[in-house]
Amino acid sequence: MGNSFGKLFKISTFGESHGKGLGVIIDGCPAGLEIDEAFIRNEMQRRKPGQSKITTQRKEEDEFQILSGVFEGKSTGTPIGMVIMNTDQKSKDYGHIADKYRPSHADFTYQEKYGIRDYRGGGRSSARETSARVAAGAIAKMLLKHFGISIQAYVSQVGDLKLDKSYQELNLDQTEENIIRCPDPEMAEKMIDFIDDVRKSRDTVGGIVSCVIKGVPAGLGEPVFDRLNAELGKAMLSINAVKGFEYGSGFEGVKMRGSEHNDAFYTEGDKVRTRTNHSGGIQGGISNGEDIYFNVAFKPVATIMIDQESVNEAGDSVTVSGKGRHDPCVVPRAVPIVEAMGALVLADYLLISRANKL
Amino acid sequence: MGNSFGKLFKISTFGESHGKGLGVIIDGCPAGLEIDEAFIRNEMQRRKPGQSKITTQRKEEDEFQILSGVFEGKSTGTPIGMVIMNTDQKSKDYGHIADKYRPSHADFTYQEKYGIRDYRGGGRSSARETSARVAAGAIAKMLLKHFGISIQAYVSQVGDLKLDKSYQELNLDQTEENIIRCPDPEMAEKMIDFIDDVRKSRDTVGGIVSCVIKGVPAGLGEPVFDRLNAELGKAMLSINAVKGFEYGSGFEGVKMRGSEHNDAFYTEGDKVRTRTNHSGGIQGGISNGEDIYFNVAFKPVATIMIDQESVNEAGDSVTVSGKGRHDPCVVPRAVPIVEAMGALVLADYLLISRANKL
Amino acid sequence: MGNSFGKLFKISTFGESHGKGLGVIIDGCPAGLEIDEAFIRNEMQRRKPGQSKITTQRKEEDEFQILSGVFEGKSTGTPIGMVIMNTDQKSKDYGHIADKYRPSHADFTYQEKYGIRDYRGGGRSSARETSARVAAGAIAKMLLKHFGISIQAYVSQVGDLKLDKSYQELNLDQTEENIIRCPDPEMAEKMIDFIDDVRKSRDTVGGIVSCVIKGVPAGLGEPVFDRLNAELGKAMLSINAVKGFEYGSGFEGVKMRGSEHNDAFYTEGDKVRTRTNHSGGIQGGISNGEDIYFNVAFKPVATIMIDQESVNEAGDSVTVSGKGRHDPCVVPRAVPIVEAMGALVLADYLLISRANKL
Amino acid sequence: MGNSFGKLFKISTFGESHGKGLGVIIDGCPAGLEIDEAFIRNEMQRRKPGQSKITTQRKEEDEFQILSGVFEGKSTGTPIGMVIMNTDQKSKDYGHIADKYRPSHADFTYQEKYGIRDYRGGGRSSARETSARVAAGAIAKMLLKHFGISIQAYVSQVGDLKLDKSYQELNLDQTEENIIRCPDPEMAEKMIDFIDDVRKSRDTVGGIVSCVIKGVPAGLGEPVFDRLNAELGKAMLSINAVKGFEYGSGFEGVKMRGSEHNDAFYTEGDKVRTRTNHSGGIQGGISNGEDIYFNVAFKPVATIMIDQESVNEAGDSVTVSGKGRHDPCVVPRAVPIVEAMGALVLADYLLISRANKL
Repeated sequence: MGNSFGKLFKISTFGESHGKGLGVIIDGCPAGLEIDEAFIRNEMQRRKPGQSKITTQRKEEDEFQILSGVFEGKSTGTPIGMVIMNTDQKSKDYGHIADKYRPSHADFTYQEKYGIRDYRGGGRSSARETSARVAAGAIAKMLLKHFGISIQAYVSQVGDLKLDKSYQELNLDQTEENIIRCPDPEMAEKMIDFIDDVRKSRDTVGGIVSCVIKGVPAGLGEPVFDRLNAELGKAMLSINAVKGFEYGSGFEGVKMRGSEHNDAFYTEGDKVRTRTNHSGGIQGGISNGEDIYFNVAFKPVATIMIDQESVNEAGDSVTVSGKGRHDPCVVPRAVPIVEAMGALVLADYLLISRANKL
Repeated sequence: MGNSFGKLFKISTFGESHGKGLGVIIDGCPAGLEIDEAFIRNEMQRRKPGQSKITTQRKEEDEFQILSGVFEGKSTGTPIGMVIMNTDQKSKDYGHIADKYRPSHADFTYQEKYGIRDYRGGGRSSARETSARVAAGAIAKMLLKHFGISIQAYVSQVGDLKLDKSYQELNLDQTEENIIRCPDPEMAEKMIDFIDDVRKSRDTVGGIVSCVIKGVPAGLGEPVFDRLNAELGKAMLSINAVKGFEYGSGFEGVKMRGSEHNDAFYTEGDKVRTRTNHSGGIQGGISNGEDIYFNVAFKPVATIMIDQESVNEAGDSVTVSGKGRHDPCVVPRAVPIVEAMGALVLADYLLISRANKL
Repeated sequence: MGNSFGKLFKISTFGESHGKGLGVIIDGCPAGLEIDEAFIRNEMQRRKPGQSKITTQRKEEDEFQILSGVFEGKSTGTPIGMVIMNTDQKSKDYGHIADKYRPSHADFTYQEKYGIRDYRGGGRSSARETSARVAAGAIAKMLLKHFGISIQAYVSQVGDLKLDKSYQELNLDQTEENIIRCPDPEMAEKMIDFIDDVRKSRDTVGGIVSCVIKGVPAGLGEPVFDRLNAELGKAMLSINAVKGFEYGSGFEGVKMRGSEHNDAFYTEGDKVRTRTNHSGGIQGGISNGEDIYFNVAFKPVATIMIDQESVNEAGDSVTVSGKGRHDPCVVPRAVPIVEAMGALVLADYLLISRANKL
Repeated sequence: MGNSFGKLFKISTFGESHGKGLGVIIDGCPAGLEIDEAFIRNEMQRRKPGQSKITTQRKEEDEFQILSGVFEGKSTGTPIGMVIMNTDQKSKDYGHIADKYRPSHADFTYQEKYGIRDYRGGGRSSARETSARVAAGAIAKMLLKHFGISIQAYVSQVGDLKLDKSYQELNLDQTEENIIRCPDPEMAEKMIDFIDDVRKSRDTVGGIVSCVIKGVPAGLGEPVFDRLNAELGKAMLSINAVKGFEYGSGFEGVKMRGSEHNDAFYTEGDKVRTRTNHSGGIQGGISNGEDIYFNVAFKPVATIMIDQESVNEAGDSVTVSGKGRHDPCVVPRAVPIVEAMGALVLADYLLISRANKL
C-alpha cells in the first residue's frame, strides 16, 4: 500500500534502487495532450545524479521509455506506462551494510515492517524512486501548461545560509543558471562553496526548497480533509528527507496579529484579488487565484563518510562506515522533485474541479 | 469530495456551522472495542467554545448521539454513525455578511468553487466541523489505548511567547490544568495574559500546538507516498487555520550536519533504540518505535473586531466589521483537534500494518 | 470497510435494523441542484414495508431528515447528511433467535467475521439498510434528470412466472399501477396471486427485477476494471438477496453467433446508432448512447414461517421458527432499490466523464 | 481512471494491444512470499493465443519480466512491477479499420469517450490487456495457496452445449487435459467440434466459464457495498466480452421457494457447515466456509470473418470485413483470466480480514 498518489490524475510507482528497473503508471491523463518526450528527458536530467561537483558522482542513466498511453505523439486517455531500466546496479557496493542498520536511514524500519529488505542502495527507500515521480510530474506539468499554470521551485536555504528575499524580489528565471539552483547568484555562490566544504569534511547538510505556483484559477481544492494545502503538504512530506512544510505565512505567521495577517480583498478589473498574500493563495483549502507558495525543509543526507555507531540485525554493536558516492546536500536535486509533486497535486485538483459542477 | 479521511479506519463527516446538524461515520473500527461515551463527551468538552475567558463565548452544545455500530457497549465492526445536532443556530447574526467576503476566510473561495454558499457562520468551512473529528478521534484514541499508544498535544507557542523546553523537559500531565493548555504553568500564565490583551484590542493572534505520540510499535507507515509523516502532515494541514507542519528536527534540522542529526542505533534489552531522536520516531516513512513528535502552526483567527477592507459578491468595495463571539487565539481549543487527527492517522496505520503480513 | 460506494458521487451509509437510526452522507453532489424533498419521500415510500398485502406488514416510518449540504432548497456542494431515525425497534421480537443462526441469513457469517453481532432484526445485514440507499439514490436521480437521464425498474419474473416481453414491448409507465410493480397488468395479477399463495403456505419465493436507463450519452464508463457494466453489476450484487446480474443479451447471449449478436452501426441524423442492442448500451465498458438494460436475480427471502434445522452459537442443533412480519417475495420493494443503485452508478460516471477531458 | 483493482492487494495495469508493452504493478503483496516464476509463466501460457486449433493462431510471446519487489526469490512487500513487451506488433493489419467502427467492439465508444484512439488491434480495449491480469493473478494464487485456498475454473457451456453436471459431479483435475478446458471429456469433444464448425463458418459463438474456490475460511467479505459476491461480480464483469455473472443458485434460484433454497446449518466436528450450498459459500456478503462457485457468461467474439454493416468516423456507411487471426470462441482462453480475477479478489479480502480485528 501507499505507492499510488492522486485521485483523478493518479500515479502508481514501483522499483528499487538496484533492481532491474523502476516505473510509473499515470492513470487519468486526459486524451489529446501532446507529449513532449524531450521535456520529460530534460526534467529527469535535472534530478539525475552526477550533474555537478556538489551532487553525488554516482552515474544513473535515467533513460525512460513510454510503453503505452501515447499514440502518434498524443495521450490517448489510457494509462501511460513508463519504465526506467537500471543499468548501474553495483550491488557489491552494499555487501558491507547488508545486515547493518545505517543511522537515520530506513534500513531498520523496513526490516521491522517487512521482515525482509532489499539492502542494495536502500532498495525502495532510495531517492532513486523519485525518478519515476519526476517522469510523471513532467507529464503533469504539460497538462498544467495547457491550462496556463506554471510551477517553479528553487533553493532558498542551505544550512544557515538563508535567502532573505521573497520570491517576488527574485528573478526565478535565473534558478537553473547555477548548480545549487538558487536564483540569487551571489547567494548561490556562497551556498556552493559551503556545500563543497561540507563535502570535504565528509559530512552533509540540510536545506530548504521554496516553490511558487502561478496561474492557478480560484476554486481548486476540496474541503475538508483534502484541502489543497493538505494535499500539497502530504505530497512534499512524501519526498525522502523532508521534515517540514509550510505555505503562505507559515510558521512565521503564528507571531502575527489577525489585523496584519488578513489579506484584504479588492477588485482588479473583474477579478477579486487580495492586497497581501499571507494566505499563500489558499483559503479554506481552496485556491483564491493568487500565487501559491510554500517551503519544504530537507534534513541533512543520512549517508556520511564518517564512522557511526549502530547495530546489526542480530542486535550487536557495529560501526557503519560510509562508502560510495553520495550527495553532500540534497536540495539542488530536490528542486525538480518538489516541482513534480506540486504539479501532480495541481493536475489532480484541476481535473477534480471540472467534475463537480452542474 | 474530500470529506473522508483514512483507509481502514475511515471517517466521513458532514455538517455546517448553522445547519440542522453535523455528524461522522467511522467505517472500520474493529469489533469488540468498549466504547466509553463519557470519554467522548469529555473530549468534545475540551474542544467546545465558551470554556474560558480566552475562548469564544459562543455556546454550542456539542451533544452527540451514537446512532449505530455499538451494541451493548461494544463496537460491532459495522459503521459507527454519530450526530451532533445544532441548537444555537443564530442565522440572523450573519445577515450582515451574507454577500460580503470576509478577509482570509473561505467565503470567496467557496463562492468561486461552488457558485453558492451557506454564509451562516462560514457554513462548512467553520471550525465547528471539527467537532465531528473530535468525536471520531475519541474512538480512535480508545483503539490506540487498547494497543498501548497514547497521544498528547499542548500549546508551545502563542505569538512570540515560545516554550523553550522540549517535551521531555515538561510535565505533560499538567497540560489540562490551565485554560491555555500549556504544560509550563509560568508560561501558561503569560500566554493567557497575552491573549487576553489581544482580545481586548479586538484582534487575534496565532500559535503552535505540539504533539507527542508514545508507545507506537516499530513498523507503522506505508512507503512511498503514504509515509506516516506525510499522512500526519496532511491530517494536521486539514485543520482550519493551520499553515505549517514539522516533525522531529523539523525546520531547525536543515541547519544541522548529518553527523549531528543522525540518530545512532544501540540495543536496550532486545529492543533496538536510537540515542537521539531527530527523526521524530519516523524513518523512511515508517515508525521506528521511538516517540513521534511534531509541531503544528496556526495562523491568527481571521475574524477580528476591527473594520477591514473587502469586496462583496458584486465586486463592490465594502467594509467588513467583526461581530459576534469569536476566539482571540485558536490554539487552546485546537489541542484536542490535533490529538484527534493524530489518533485517526495512527489507528488507520495500525490496522493497515496488521494486514500486510503473511 | 465497504460502507461507501462511488468515486465522485460517493455515498457512505450507517445503521442497523433496530439501532437508534440509519443514515447516509452524499459526498460529491454538485452545487446548485434543486433538492425536492417530496420526491425523496416518495421514493422511500416505494421501498417502505407495509405497502400492500404482498409485502411485510411491519411498519417502519422511514422519515428522513436532511441535516446538511442543502441551503435554501439547493445543494451547496458540501456533503449532504441524511438520517432516518428508527421508531419501531421491537427488540424483544428477536430474543428467540439471539444465539441461533437463521439459515441463509448473515447471522453465522457476521458472528464469524466480527465475533459479535447485533442480532436484532439482522442488524446491519437487514434490508432496512437499503432505506439509506434509496434516500441517496433519489438525489442521484435528480442529478440524472438534470442531464436528461431516466431510470426505470420493474418486476419481470416471480418464481416461474416470467414476462416474455422485452422492455420495448411494455408500457413502463404502468409499473407503479399495481402492487407487484410489473408493467403488464395481466401478468401482474398472476404474480400477485402467486405470491399471496406462497405467503399463505408460510414460504417465500424469488424473482427478477429488470431495469432500463434511457438518455445516457455515449462515452460514460472507465476501462478496464471500472467498466460501466462492472460497476452496475457490483451495485446490484451489493443489494441483499441478489444472486445474479446480466446486461444486454446476458446469459442468453452465450448461445448466439457473433453474426447474430453484433450490433450493426448506422447513422441517424448526426448520431451513430446500432440496429440491434444486444450490447445493452455498453461496449468495451463504455456507454454507446443506446438504452442500457439489465436483469437482477433475487433469491427467495430467507425468513420463512416454517421450522428449520440449524445450530446455535454453541454449536448445538436447534430449530429456527420464523416469527414476525416478513416479505413473501422481495421484488416489489426491490424495484426502487435497483433504481437507486443504478442512479448512483450513473451519477458517479457522469461526473467522472466531465473530469477527464482537456 | 479505472485501471486499478483491489484495496490492500491492489493491481494497476497499463498497455495496449500493439503498443511497446504492457504491465502491472502489484501493491500490497505481503513480504516473504516465495515467487515461483515458472508458475507465472505457466499461467500466462494458458491464456496465450495460438494454443490450439480452436484459438486464434496469432502469436504473442507473453514473456514477462519482474522488475521490482522480489529479492532473492521472495516478495519484499514493496510493489511488484512486471512488464510484458510486445514483439508481434503488426500495425499494418489494422490500417483497413483505422477509421471504421467494428460492430460490437469498443472502437466507437473509445472514440466518443476520448476523442482519439489507438486503433491497432483495439488498443487498450483488446483482450491482450488481460495478460497483465493473469500475471498478477498468478501471484495472488501463490498467496492464496499459502493460506490453503485454491481456485479452479472450467468451461461449462459453449453455444447450446451445456454441461448438465454440477462441479461436485466432475473431476476438475481433468480440466486442462483438453483444449476447450471442459472437465467432461465427452462434452469437451463435442464442444471442440462445434467450435471448429463455427470457425469454419467464419463465425463465432459464446459460452460460460464456471469457477469454484475451495478452502476459503468463514468471515471474508465486507458488507454492505463491498460484499464478496459483489466484488467477484465486478471482477468478472470487468473481463472483455462478459455479459453476466451469477453465484450459488444464481438465476435458477429465483424459481425456488425459501424452504428449498435455505441452507440448513449443522455441525461437523467443531465446524459449522450447511447441508446444501445454494448460497454459493457467501451469506450476507461474507464467506461461510463452504465452496464458493459462480458462472460467468461470455458473448460471442465480435470479430467475425463475415462482412458487416457499419459506419466510419465521418458517419458514412461502410462495410467491415474481418481479417487477421481471431478466436472463434473466447471461453478456453478465458478460463485462466476468470481464475486470475477470482484470485485477486480473494487475496484482497483475505488481507482485509486480517486488519479489522482487535
